[in-house]
Amino acid sequence: MSDDRPLVVFRPQPARRERIFSAAAWDRLRQDYQLVDLSEDESEEALAEALPRAFAVIGQPTLDAAAIAQAGQLRCLMNVEGNFFPNVDYPAAQDRGIHILGCGPAYAPAVAEYSVGLALDLCRGISRADRLFRAGQEAYAAEGSLDSVLLARADVGFIGYGLLGRATHRLLESFRPTIRVFDPWVPDSVLDEAGLLPVGLDEVLASSRVVFVFATVTAENERMLGAEQLALLPDGARLVVVSRAAVLDLDALVAEVASGRILAAIDVWPEEPMPADAPVRRLDGLVLSAHRAGGIPQALLSIGDMVLDDLDQIRRGLPPMRMQVAARELVGRYRNRPVT
Amino acid sequence: MSDDRPLVVFRPQPARRERIFSAAAWDRLRQDYQLVDLSEDESEEALAEALPRAFAVIGQPTLDAAAIAQAGQLRCLMNVEGNFFPNVDYPAAQDRGIHILGCGPAYAPAVAEYSVGLALDLCRGISRADRLFRAGQEAYAAEGSLDSVLLARADVGFIGYGLLGRATHRLLESFRPTIRVFDPWVPDSVLDEAGLLPVGLDEVLASSRVVFVFATVTAENERMLGAEQLALLPDGARLVVVSRAAVLDLDALVAEVASGRILAAIDVWPEEPMPADAPVRRLDGLVLSAHRAGGIPQALLSIGDMVLDDLDQIRRGLPPMRMQVAARELVGRYRNRPVT
Amino acid sequence: MSDDRPLVVFRPQPARRERIFSAAAWDRLRQDYQLVDLSEDESEEALAEALPRAFAVIGQPTLDAAAIAQAGQLRCLMNVEGNFFPNVDYPAAQDRGIHILGCGPAYAPAVAEYSVGLALDLCRGISRADRLFRAGQEAYAAEGSLDSVLLARADVGFIGYGLLGRATHRLLESFRPTIRVFDPWVPDSVLDEAGLLPVGLDEVLASSRVVFVFATVTAENERMLGAEQLALLPDGARLVVVSRAAVLDLDALVAEVASGRILAAIDVWPEEPMPADAPVRRLDGLVLSAHRAGGIPQALLSIGDMVLDDLDQIRRGLPPMRMQVAARELVGRYRNRPVT
Amino acid sequence: MSDDRPLVVFRPQPARRERIFSAAAWDRLRQDYQLVDLSEDESEEALAEALPRAFAVIGQPTLDAAAIAQAGQLRCLMNVEGNFFPNVDYPAAQDRGIHILGCGPAYAPAVAEYSVGLALDLCRGISRADRLFRAGQEAYAAEGSLDSVLLARADVGFIGYGLLGRATHRLLESFRPTIRVFDPWVPDSVLDEAGLLPVGLDEVLASSRVVFVFATVTAENERMLGAEQLALLPDGARLVVVSRAAVLDLDALVAEVASGRILAAIDVWPEEPMPADAPVRRLDGLVLSAHRAGGIPQALLSIGDMVLDDLDQIRRGLPPMRMQVAARELVGRYRNRPVT
Repeated sequence: MSDDRPLVVFRPQPARRERIFSAAAWDRLRQDYQLVDLSEDESEEALAEALPRAFAVIGQPTLDAAAIAQAGQLRCLMNVEGNFFPNVDYPAAQDRGIHILGCGPAYAPAVAEYSVGLALDLCRGISRADRLFRAGQEAYAAEGSLDSVLLARADVGFIGYGLLGRATHRLLESFRPTIRVFDPWVPDSVLDEAGLLPVGLDEVLASSRVVFVFATVTAENERMLGAEQLALLPDGARLVVVSRAAVLDLDALVAEVASGRILAAIDVWPEEPMPADAPVRRLDGLVLSAHRAGGIPQALLSIGDMVLDDLDQIRRGLPPMRMQVAARELVGRYRNRPVT
Repeated sequence: MSDDRPLVVFRPQPARRERIFSAAAWDRLRQDYQLVDLSEDESEEALAEALPRAFAVIGQPTLDAAAIAQAGQLRCLMNVEGNFFPNVDYPAAQDRGIHILGCGPAYAPAVAEYSVGLALDLCRGISRADRLFRAGQEAYAAEGSLDSVLLARADVGFIGYGLLGRATHRLLESFRPTIRVFDPWVPDSVLDEAGLLPVGLDEVLASSRVVFVFATVTAENERMLGAEQLALLPDGARLVVVSRAAVLDLDALVAEVASGRILAAIDVWPEEPMPADAPVRRLDGLVLSAHRAGGIPQALLSIGDMVLDDLDQIRRGLPPMRMQVAARELVGRYRNRPVT
Repeated sequence: MSDDRPLVVFRPQPARRERIFSAAAWDRLRQDYQLVDLSEDESEEALAEALPRAFAVIGQPTLDAAAIAQAGQLRCLMNVEGNFFPNVDYPAAQDRGIHILGCGPAYAPAVAEYSVGLALDLCRGISRADRLFRAGQEAYAAEGSLDSVLLARADVGFIGYGLLGRATHRLLESFRPTIRVFDPWVPDSVLDEAGLLPVGLDEVLASSRVVFVFATVTAENERMLGAEQLALLPDGARLVVVSRAAVLDLDALVAEVASGRILAAIDVWPEEPMPADAPVRRLDGLVLSAHRAGGIPQALLSIGDMVLDDLDQIRRGLPPMRMQVAARELVGRYRNRPVT
Repeated sequence: MSDDRPLVVFRPQPARRERIFSAAAWDRLRQDYQLVDLSEDESEEALAEALPRAFAVIGQPTLDAAAIAQAGQLRCLMNVEGNFFPNVDYPAAQDRGIHILGCGPAYAPAVAEYSVGLALDLCRGISRADRLFRAGQEAYAAEGSLDSVLLARADVGFIGYGLLGRATHRLLESFRPTIRVFDPWVPDSVLDEAGLLPVGLDEVLASSRVVFVFATVTAENERMLGAEQLALLPDGARLVVVSRAAVLDLDALVAEVASGRILAAIDVWPEEPMPADAPVRRLDGLVLSAHRAGGIPQALLSIGDMVLDDLDQIRRGLPPMRMQVAARELVGRYRNRPVT
């Protein structure tokens, strides 16, 4: 008896199935598709055997040109980790019309909220004041808020205006800030149309009370925020770093924060975990966060839902609409590593 | 040579002049009005002498019916502290057409932002995770966010929909929550028109992931949030208290937080300062804040600007438009005490 | 047997009961209040007899100081026509703490939508193109839209920023215009805070592609829009007049429109009805409207609901929250006449 | 001397150069690119000669697989007419990684505003009342608005949620409607996430006061709005048709409008121009419009700007961001014909 449901290969490692699929979504996947579940089997053989009949691969296994050539039925590669690694021959796949799909849209709302939360913490000293209160050193009312500032109508800077920038922009709208953006990949007209001011990196830094770093890492922008750039920030500026540690010279930032000139919140680190004796752990003007911006349960579980919706779209002869379609021009330029 | 500028009595205590008037605003006040500056003089005599010629009183001195009868030119009483105390015969003043004006609108944007900041801290554990990181106990990525939730599209509850509720509502709009409101002073239609769900107190508590307490204190609502009410909150609820400590049974809240069932942020306390050995100082699920929601520099300085704008309006025969006009029905019902 | 429900006098003329009260609202009014229905009885005697026991008057009857002195229980005068006429001794009432309430908030949403509708008609030539199509003279596609412009991101001017201006501002927000406002009754800071540019009348006219006239009539602003002012409008400007005919020199506007230099929509006229042979009836660049902006069924019926809500508020010792509280400073300055 | 600027073939017919390129944009195009201007030359030879060196083609000439094979340098096909016609072998081009780009985003804001303008006309009878006024038959105030309704908070239906639906949705946000959407190409979750209710076609029709038809034509949806479907509309419904005439049974709609049961605005017609004696020209409940929704000067000129921006993006190794990337799955399914 034949099974004419499309065949889906599931190899999500290092993502874990129960984190990204709700029970209901998992049931629906198993019911509507022939599932080859390789979540416990990382062997090349198992993958190679399934590929020729695969309609979709959920996960981010290594696929060179030969593997893609074998996958004659393949319609989509669905990354469920969050980064496109250089282990796939993306051009070979895209030439075949195979959709390369990423799960960034699942994380973006969580990262955006977290970024706004960090910014408000920095504007108002929420975690610092909580520490003082626990130490019996709190200052009440106006005395305790001498360096607090409003986010409302503030000069805000974005470094990067991709998924994270757009999601954060949406949340900030009710605060009615003036937002300056540096993103060399986005035409000025797109920013202007969105109500943003397109400017250079230096102007973003020099003119903003609150700066959000949303840039992904490429060969061109590693360490683009060094001592020289950070010195452009006005006194009392707040810096929120949620994208990639590599865009930043952490020592330079630590020096600026230690001097008391600026405040910062950091969610991504050059090493994770950071060494137990890292001096950042004692820095008063810093909000310390351990890569927590995106991976909350609601975000992770929405990955499974997006996968299902786009499988259904493609199966019905429609384009995917929930996951992010990787741009041919960009997919090879990222320099990300998996979160372990 | 006569001075036909309107006479303004300035007696802002306990507010301090330099906190609420920028240098520019103070200069403008002195230039456009005859200023009787009693900021260093709390004597009854000085006030009594100035009152008969006063066009406006900036501050919140005691004024009984006799004093008001003396103040034949008086057009407005401008409270610059934030609360209406029972030291003025408000009906006598209002019968004379004297505007009773409060500076709540100066604080509301700051309180609203702080409330959203506290809510995001509770949703994502920002200050708790910062503490763990400093202690070398941080958990990275998904492991560190197991109880995190989104504010976006969440079920949110407001207890009270006055100035603070409205300002917070505006900021939350970009998060697109469902907001249930309990406010017995506001007609359901006003809430419905604003896109809110008017419900009873119990339903606000039972149906909300994040609850904001904005209620002012009256004879009717003291301790309205006791053990019984707090027990209605769903597991994992977040409670933000920024208005008045007296609406809350603090011990009951502490018990709920200590049990791990809910999380809370508290900005107002039954005693300020709280005792050094208060157990709340060691409670892990609490964000502790020392009456810091409203009194930030930008908010305080906007008081002077509002005072000037409304002096100008009234002098030109126009109604005040920046300060809050005290409702005849409500001004006597508040049970607030000054922040010291 | 005594009836302790508050007594309400209902004398809505020229408003008609069934237009402003739904059946349900009318039933609720009769059930919760002792109703003295004078909608068929305009005699002074009937009113005089009811006044001493009246808690509220719904309508706009003549009430001089003596009448108000008789009305010892009176708590509110609820205008249900839309304009405050000079037939009431407002200061006498306000000194007694009697609320003077207007129904402008019932009309504002309807006027705002209509204003946006007229503006879009002028921007795109909707009614003119419909006329041409009916005459068999339509031009298709680009040829038929050579003088069309976008409202989105346009320079927009408001003359007046009261209830109508604010309601229209809210609707225009999604069009993201730059809005310049002239309103001498409103402090610049209020406009700035609302995201608007406070400017003088000349600058509103000279800098706007679309101008909305929302000004009410006072002694100071009659005919403020004369030939000289209208000449400031840029070529191709669109003018929407929905407030009061008296602020405008109609002949001057007709001349500008007849010349083809600007386009206009007019809803209010120096005479209503206009003469059958009025030349405006043949003017191609004009959208003609017969005082239709506010009085649609949904707006009229909301008056009854607002009346009920505010009766309930006042009865419960709370301030009215749905009708507009007349400002002591302004209520005597309007120069409106009833719509007949 | 060699010219290393990328070669761009310009063959925009039936679009006209001066309509879609401002003088400044045209100058920039000629300066930054080698331009082969075929706007006056429709010969196959001229195109064939230029193709092998072409980096981009601006226009919509016929390109079969052989032609695409010749165009070894081609990176993008930029449609400047607005519809994808079946005269290009799209799969052959997409397999080569050639971007197929459409100019729909240039039209969408204009169509959206026009749709809202038509809806407000229908809600308030603007053009009908203008006709009556010109005929000396206007009714003033409430008498002239007996069938007027608010768009604010109304039940609104969208048939289709592509570029036009999304742009209109954005404009309608300040009216805070409840919007039901039927679009079989869009997952329910996308609509839900956008704050819309995903429903079937019948429910859109049966539950909406105002229905917008934004559906493009495919083999599946021709005449999907026939007599049976239109009968589902509630009495007094308003129907706005701006996408394609073929989705509608015009005779059935005319019958409904003629009966007085519903009102409609139509911008697209089975024949353009419509016959001089078409009965629709005399229908009172119809707003007649001659394919005027999108092609206004600002929209057309933005096409040139978008083309330039995306040429620059692609030249720099970045993905296009202003024009619409045609989905492989959809580009062959449209059944549009050019507007002549």
